[in-house]
Amino acid sequence: MQRDIQELISQMTLEEKAGMCSGLDFWHLKGVERLGIPSVMVTDGPHGLRKQKASADHLGLFDSVPATCFPSAAGLACSWDRELIRRVGVALGEECQAENVAVLLGPGANIKRSPLCGRNFEYFSEDPYLSSEMAASHIAGVQSQGVGTSLKHFAVNNQEHRRMSVDAVVDERTLREIYLASFEGAVKQSQPWTVMSSYNRVNGTYASENEFLLTDILKNEWGHEGFVVSDWGAVDERADALAAGLELEMPASGGVGERKVVEAVQSGRLSMEALDRAVERLLTIIFRAVDHRKPGAAYDPAEHHRLAREVARESMVLLKNERSLLPLSRGSHLAVIGAFADKPRYQGGGSSHIVPTQLDQPVEEIRKLADASGVVTYAQGYRLESDTADEALTEEAKRAAAAADTAVIFAGLPDRYESEGYDRTHLSLPANQIRLIEEVAAVQPKVVVVLLNGSPVEMPWIGSAQAVLEGYLGGQAVGGAVADLLYGEANPCGKLAETFPEQLSDNPSYLFFPGEGDRVEYREGIFVGYRYYDTKNVKPLFPFGYGLSYTTFEYTSLTLDKKQIQDTESVTVRVTVKNTGAAAGKEIVQLYVKDAESTVIRPAKELKGFAKVFLQPGEERTVSFVLDKRAFAYYNVDLKDWHVETGEFHILAGSSSQHIVLQDSVVVESTAALRKTYTRNTTLGDLLQDAAAREKAQGLLQAFQEASGFAAGPEDDHADMMAAMMKYMPLRALVGFSQGALTEQTLEDLLKELNHN
Amino acid sequence: MQRDIQELISQMTLEEKAGMCSGLDFWHLKGVERLGIPSVMVTDGPHGLRKQKASADHLGLFDSVPATCFPSAAGLACSWDRELIRRVGVALGEECQAENVAVLLGPGANIKRSPLCGRNFEYFSEDPYLSSEMAASHIAGVQSQGVGTSLKHFAVNNQEHRRMSVDAVVDERTLREIYLASFEGAVKQSQPWTVMSSYNRVNGTYASENEFLLTDILKNEWGHEGFVVSDWGAVDERADALAAGLELEMPASGGVGERKVVEAVQSGRLSMEALDRAVERLLTIIFRAVDHRKPGAAYDPAEHHRLAREVARESMVLLKNERSLLPLSRGSHLAVIGAFADKPRYQGGGSSHIVPTQLDQPVEEIRKLADASGVVTYAQGYRLESDTADEALTEEAKRAAAAADTAVIFAGLPDRYESEGYDRTHLSLPANQIRLIEEVAAVQPKVVVVLLNGSPVEMPWIGSAQAVLEGYLGGQAVGGAVADLLYGEANPCGKLAETFPEQLSDNPSYLFFPGEGDRVEYREGIFVGYRYYDTKNVKPLFPFGYGLSYTTFEYTSLTLDKKQIQDTESVTVRVTVKNTGAAAGKEIVQLYVKDAESTVIRPAKELKGFAKVFLQPGEERTVSFVLDKRAFAYYNVDLKDWHVETGEFHILAGSSSQHIVLQDSVVVESTAALRKTYTRNTTLGDLLQDAAAREKAQGLLQAFQEASGFAAGPEDDHADMMAAMMKYMPLRALVGFSQGALTEQTLEDLLKELNHN
Repeated sequence: MQRDIQELISQMTLEEKAGMCSGLDFWHLKGVERLGIPSVMVTDGPHGLRKQKASADHLGLFDSVPATCFPSAAGLACSWDRELIRRVGVALGEECQAENVAVLLGPGANIKRSPLCGRNFEYFSEDPYLSSEMAASHIAGVQSQGVGTSLKHFAVNNQEHRRMSVDAVVDERTLREIYLASFEGAVKQSQPWTVMSSYNRVNGTYASENEFLLTDILKNEWGHEGFVVSDWGAVDERADALAAGLELEMPASGGVGERKVVEAVQSGRLSMEALDRAVERLLTIIFRAVDHRKPGAAYDPAEHHRLAREVARESMVLLKNERSLLPLSRGSHLAVIGAFADKPRYQGGGSSHIVPTQLDQPVEEIRKLADASGVVTYAQGYRLESDTADEALTEEAKRAAAAADTAVIFAGLPDRYESEGYDRTHLSLPANQIRLIEEVAAVQPKVVVVLLNGSPVEMPWIGSAQAVLEGYLGGQAVGGAVADLLYGEANPCGKLAETFPEQLSDNPSYLFFPGEGDRVEYREGIFVGYRYYDTKNVKPLFPFGYGLSYTTFEYTSLTLDKKQIQDTESVTVRVTVKNTGAAAGKEIVQLYVKDAESTVIRPAKELKGFAKVFLQPGEERTVSFVLDKRAFAYYNVDLKDWHVETGEFHILAGSSSQHIVLQDSVVVESTAALRKTYTRNTTLGDLLQDAAAREKAQGLLQAFQEASGFAAGPEDDHADMMAAMMKYMPLRALVGFSQGALTEQTLEDLLKELNHN
Repeated sequence: MQRDIQELISQMTLEEKAGMCSGLDFWHLKGVERLGIPSVMVTDGPHGLRKQKASADHLGLFDSVPATCFPSAAGLACSWDRELIRRVGVALGEECQAENVAVLLGPGANIKRSPLCGRNFEYFSEDPYLSSEMAASHIAGVQSQGVGTSLKHFAVNNQEHRRMSVDAVVDERTLREIYLASFEGAVKQSQPWTVMSSYNRVNGTYASENEFLLTDILKNEWGHEGFVVSDWGAVDERADALAAGLELEMPASGGVGERKVVEAVQSGRLSMEALDRAVERLLTIIFRAVDHRKPGAAYDPAEHHRLAREVARESMVLLKNERSLLPLSRGSHLAVIGAFADKPRYQGGGSSHIVPTQLDQPVEEIRKLADASGVVTYAQGYRLESDTADEALTEEAKRAAAAADTAVIFAGLPDRYESEGYDRTHLSLPANQIRLIEEVAAVQPKVVVVLLNGSPVEMPWIGSAQAVLEGYLGGQAVGGAVADLLYGEANPCGKLAETFPEQLSDNPSYLFFPGEGDRVEYREGIFVGYRYYDTKNVKPLFPFGYGLSYTTFEYTSLTLDKKQIQDTESVTVRVTVKNTGAAAGKEIVQLYVKDAESTVIRPAKELKGFAKVFLQPGEERTVSFVLDKRAFAYYNVDLKDWHVETGEFHILAGSSSQHIVLQDSVVVESTAALRKTYTRNTTLGDLLQDAAAREKAQGLLQAFQEASGFAAGPEDDHADMMAAMMKYMPLRALVGFSQGALTEQTLEDLLKELNHN
């Protein structure tokens, strides 16, 4: 429907405009009845709809309408499947339409800086490219149904500890390459209707008042067209936030926010134009929601449950499978052990916690898939509410395991271990679970451990398990999905979207996480996740991109369509993969780029492409990737732009970040004209490196050597030192050491000439 | 002699004053003949005198008068022996007097941030306490002879790469606790006559122009009474340097420096008072040298050589000694292998390179100590000038080794591998040496490797050596010292003053060393050396403080004279050690302090005391340590002072940083009154922590909960989250969430009241 939003704004009073910029209550935006501006609803997401029932508490944590619970983002990302994530988004959009929700508050694209972050289960990855691709697909899916999303939490919100006051101190290159890049791709590809600003400060300024983030980068550089909404309670000073580019304060602030905006306009601190622009962005999205409303829309919960099961299967990662213990025979005798087998942990705590439409019990689903001859016994093994081993439960579990062919232990993190609101302080499973695994393994060598957890755990017990399946938080169909994978009804095809460290202290942020008081310094810089482990040679427990299958794959060829390009061109890389095993399966082909040589600090490799390919036994297929400037560039803070240093880049194809199978290289030539400015402290070596300056530099050097007698002496061993001394010598020191033979005037004249060219 | 320096200054012209502030030539200060101000000489050090012969090149690298070459600082520090280092200083002072040298340019107290730094052999340690104790003893020894020292290179000069232009970017706490602390103790204890400013920039400003370093800290805070001299050629803008507190520019700058000072005074940019203060400091030291001059002084080179041998013995570290292969029998048949056995590397390259009074050949010294029945053969093994194995030399070495009882391989770093002027890029021994060790071990299981190198090497070959003796750069008596230790004439008693990493990438600075262009960021902060390895759980090859002996020691008791002190008091710790083996020997007892719990980031432990104790077999002795405020404090950048957080501190006694044997704890109470200021963004949790504010905070919380309905819900799992949310909630968010029940005015009034108390 065509509307003249400018005309509408011109009819609004200052108070009405200011009012639009704060919520009506916890979950609704304000409308203006006299002008026909409706009030629309937003609800928490992102892996399911959390629409508060009218009677519930403000946050609606404890009572929301039933909705399909899909795997949380940590698991979704392990599918590395853009189309699958898009389908999840479509389903979420359908449920929003059925519930008359205008905007679903998700997805979250924060980077997993530390595995301790309590909200990691809601985030995709430690890698910005994978994260932004997943977020872009999620957004595209939801928005295809005429429902908005809110890409969150913008930005640098990588811990729950003191999240509403902490200042994340991060250098701009790291900000651009890691923490913002995860949002950038999603904004540019999928234009989320809204972006949610985070609670924390970034380099001293609250994200909700951060003009650099909200206006300069998000709106101006990336071209975001929607509006920015605060995380609930994230606004510090409302007028400053509005001026910085935050259009909507949520929830309602009892009139405080509106009043401050009105006063700021009246006092001239905030221009009416800025307020009008904010209202325009709000109205544009509100009416977009209204126009896409599908009255009477409904969805089929059973169908969405089937989708949830498919997605969960694709999201789980087979970490270990010695002597091909998995898949299990349907006729075998299984001891299914662990409270999680009966009461699975399938979603995380906090604002994303939903009421599912139904919930599969793993042990029941396993029973359903077993043959008539199969025996499936269950033993609780441990109590979820305690970390202390229960002797009776342990003994029962051991008896069941000893009597069976195989023990399948469901383990993982209880709700109290990870949640929105606080971070973990260690990576251990509860002590009673570890003890259970070890005791069961002592009586039954065939142990499968199924892990349900939102973020990595240490596995000092892994020697006791012949197979380990990482289930993450698998959503309401977790039980069926695990059963499908255990019995080989489906072939595991997920790969880790984050590194599993051997021990917490191996994590790059370890020494500086979660900071001191209200300040956390991101000292590891760009070395987040595998960028750290691979560059610093720290052996992970399981590397980024790792995951096993019931079949095997061979990478048979890697070709590039060009061996040399300019940074304005792109190169197409083709990788051929073959299923060399006996089962149909999917392989996730990963493409990394490594700068062969660089004057700036760069990681050992960076993910720049991935493709998931389904192959029948013996089948071979070729996937292709297009690499453009961004795939080779780093963010140059002086240029304030992405920059490629002319030179060779290695193109690496592999099945994980640490298993590179094929490689080739391409030369990329920069088209950027970098202007050099020389000073009295430019080194002689740098001058000699520059073709345009070399001749003059050599003249200077010769004059200096004649005057000073500085030169390599008769002993070879000192030649290296003298050469290094000359190379690193600033021009002004040449003058000084020349004992008057060269003058400051010579130097000044030379610099004038060099900088003039 | 009494002189009126003020009167002298009043008689000097501006040009004469300015002239005094630059050198006369490369090695002399200017005098003023008409006023009776003499020209005095300075020469390079620090482990021997490098006085240029009149005929030599400017740097005098290739021709200096003979002097005793003591072990370089990297080795000296492994003695952990204050008195021994003082005796070395005395000997150096005697040689200076004999050569009419006023100031010896050393010692170097820079911290070993990376093992790659080409000049690490001239520095003591990765630990500031050990380094400053060694430097203080060295200075005290030299200056006891009426000769000055120059504590260098002040400051944060931890790499040779681009050393004259690089900017070392380091946070103030790290600067204070690590990089400056290494100088601070030496300045305060021993008042070096001069301090030498380094080539590099520190946080954007050249060290030689850095008022914060040279004036605020060195002169004002630490009370340095002497003058500051530039490293040779380190001055950028002479007048700025003088204003910042650099009294002497070296070497002569052909009149450039003087002219700039004169102009600056004439134009009013530099005050005459500042220039006068500089000249006063210069004259004070010049006349101190003159007054302490010992005309006709001489020293006994043979006696100094004997001292050099003693010192070298005490400085070497026995790293490995499987099945007590060492000490060797004097009657055994030894194959001494390796070019270094004949031409040892005994000092480093660069400005510290001296001409020794004599030089022991290791193989000859071994022969001298062997019994009549002992056979000592020699094989060259490898060529020093190449990294490529020489088949003939390898075969010869294998034959010699196979025919002998034991092979003693001399290996290490050739001169071209490490020197002033450039850094290493890896930690490997030359490939031909590694190959030699492995090939010899294949024919002779009893292999001793003696290492001669200035800084750690990786030892992938260590499985081929049954014993490893780290000789560092042992000075001119290296041969005799090694022979003494191999045969048990002396018992090894050195311990590492730096961590030997398994691999280069384990070093904390690895990802950011040596920086990008002219900027190097010290992102690892205070986590240098063992502070990193021990806190981050990175297993070193050999830890800080580690070293073996031919005897064994038992730590039998640790006692504290108090269990609770105020930070104005001190606690005395007594540790009793017993020699439980059959040989007399020395143990270096190390005392570390660990803050049990802290709100700031602190290392797992920090060295705060050490004592070297000589024990006959069966003998037991008690050493004591006094720990004062500084032993428990961190540098608080807000307070701009050292601060102890009230609480428990663990007192750890051990034989290395990773071998803590005894421990106890003490409670230290802070006497500092920290004033808290609360803001609208103070968290509720922080307010509740403060006894003075708690009651008001609880009132606010109650009002909020009544108004908002925010509270833990019926499910236990959410209780943790709600508690965390409340704890981390800024006061202004309480107001916002209260939906009008609390007002901004309530908050303002509360803050006014809290901050007024």
